[in-house]
Amino acid sequence: MTPQMTALRWLDPPDGPAIVLLDQTRLPVEESYLTCTDIPQLVDAIGRLVVRGAPMLGVAGAFGVGLAAARGDDVEAAATAIAAARPTAVNLSWGVRRALAAWRAAAGGTGLVPARNEGAKAALAEARAIAEQDAAASAAMALHGLELVPPGARILTHCNTGGLVSAGAGTAFAVILAAYQAGRLERLWVDETRPLLQGARLTAWEARRAGIPHSVLADGAAGSLLAAGEVDLVLTGADRIAADGSVANKVGTYGLAVLARHHNVPFVVVAPVSTVDFATPDGRSITVEYRPASEVANLAGHPVAPAGTEAYNPAFDVTPAELITALVTEEGLIHPVTPGNLRVLDAATCR
Amino acid sequence: MTPQMTALRWLDPPDGPAIVLLDQTRLPVEESYLTCTDIPQLVDAIGRLVVRGAPMLGVAGAFGVGLAAARGDDVEAAATAIAAARPTAVNLSWGVRRALAAWRAAAGGTGLVPARNEGAKAALAEARAIAEQDAAASAAMALHGLELVPPGARILTHCNTGGLVSAGAGTAFAVILAAYQAGRLERLWVDETRPLLQGARLTAWEARRAGIPHSVLADGAAGSLLAAGEVDLVLTGADRIAADGSVANKVGTYGLAVLARHHNVPFVVVAPVSTVDFATPDGRSITVEYRPASEVANLAGHPVAPAGTEAYNPAFDVTPAELITALVTEEGLIHPVTPGNLRVLDAATCR
Repeated sequence: MTPQMTALRWLDPPDGPAIVLLDQTRLPVEESYLTCTDIPQLVDAIGRLVVRGAPMLGVAGAFGVGLAAARGDDVEAAATAIAAARPTAVNLSWGVRRALAAWRAAAGGTGLVPARNEGAKAALAEARAIAEQDAAASAAMALHGLELVPPGARILTHCNTGGLVSAGAGTAFAVILAAYQAGRLERLWVDETRPLLQGARLTAWEARRAGIPHSVLADGAAGSLLAAGEVDLVLTGADRIAADGSVANKVGTYGLAVLARHHNVPFVVVAPVSTVDFATPDGRSITVEYRPASEVANLAGHPVAPAGTEAYNPAFDVTPAELITALVTEEGLIHPVTPGNLRVLDAATCR
Repeated sequence: MTPQMTALRWLDPPDGPAIVLLDQTRLPVEESYLTCTDIPQLVDAIGRLVVRGAPMLGVAGAFGVGLAAARGDDVEAAATAIAAARPTAVNLSWGVRRALAAWRAAAGGTGLVPARNEGAKAALAEARAIAEQDAAASAAMALHGLELVPPGARILTHCNTGGLVSAGAGTAFAVILAAYQAGRLERLWVDETRPLLQGARLTAWEARRAGIPHSVLADGAAGSLLAAGEVDLVLTGADRIAADGSVANKVGTYGLAVLARHHNVPFVVVAPVSTVDFATPDGRSITVEYRPASEVANLAGHPVAPAGTEAYNPAFDVTPAELITALVTEEGLIHPVTPGNLRVLDAATCR
């Protein structure tokens, strides 16, 4: 069973297959869908962030290979083009590689191009498997994370970690949703998450859709919220976790972690095991991407600083393990976050 | 000598007097000026934040009384209308009251309405005196604050504290400008200061105008900047200081103070003695103004969150004295910030 996804659907009508994407660039103003019937359309959509978020890009990349195969395109060339749509998105090329391997295997290891039907079936089955695994990981993270949510919890979150970026309920947002469904969530506080406003634009949209009581705040207002005793738990996702437990996540996460510690509020990171990168020994080894000044100098396309203003605009920051109360993975809780406790994950998942 | 002001000029051409305001609502996109030749125009401009900031509103209110007197208006009625343009702005009504008292006194204490020329002269002289005192206080704060700036300093600031809100160089920005002129400033880091973006819109404009090397950052990026060792000093202004040294300032200030402490970076507040409110015993007694959700959910009419989204939007936050390394006033440095050290100011200024 392919999970019901928010961000992406596979359609196979008589007139030819298609990938239908919820256009995230138009949220929250408009809920519109973009139908990709060929690979150039999909590559363009991925490049423009119509679909985004680490796990979801893996799913989209794999379905893209399936689309190319079903159309009878040159699948190897299509796979290369899709993976190049966002070259730094590790999950995208990983999803593409998995579906491509399934497609190749459909020729029975002969090294020949598989028959169109067989190849497409194999690639699509792999895409569905990726989505199922992601949804299952979300469900497991939600279950484990729920243990950390007290009754009547007021949870503060940062960036966007829900169904828009996952085939399931996501990471931090999956725990939030489970807490709401268990009657334990009093309020969700949503950092707007400048510069790209993923909190205000996307997490608020997800919370509203789920019926979760929520309020958005400017990132700088989190301190006063914590000082007022209005936060019981901070929950975020992670973009990459180093072997020493340092967490790279959307810029602003580190400041929240420092504030949470100052106020003795638990700061919990929710991320699948695949986020832990044992090849990166520590926080200092994580390369932070610096993004264009225009993201800060503009807000929703409107200039907010003098033309030509320079900006310091890191996409991520790094939170050291000692500020992280616990890490929630699909394999269970890691607490405290230490290199030794993380290595258990490495062994458990045999990657 | 009336100081040369950025935000406001008094004009007295043959065809009648006028107050010319730099329209701060159009910054940074456009440097345009609004000429107010009567009181309704000025009241409207103050209400729309064409002119803003505590000390500058005192100056504008006093010049407004001078304008009414020079026009031969009902000065008492004009004074009431100006003060009501922003009822919670304490400095506005204070400036109006000072100029009105000077106008009344021009009738020689007879209780009569003063002669038009004499009344206008007296009110304008008082307005100029307010501006001079403010400029002198700025200069003194700059001098005292400079003692805290090391050579090659990289200073992080929040909100807008320069010549747009002062008849002089402002508060924190006056120290920054002095440091730049003394060759001690390597870089100014400017928090964009959501939701109203006073940093990106106004402080970046002031820095550019002064030739100061600067970069804007999303408020959430300050943590990573401090963690990278790129900040030697954090300088902010204050909206109100309680008798225990708690500082109410633009939302986001408290989070910066916690981060600065975490990284052992000095966190210094620059504010005139008039900001210290001895009638407010402590931080908890400071009433924080909560502003509309629309400020967070919109920018220039463009929605950045789903329609109807609730927001937590305090205008200010409160930083306890123990997180403040020093307070710079026109009377000198206060360090450490303790009730006893603050009381010395109270005695010194005989308010």
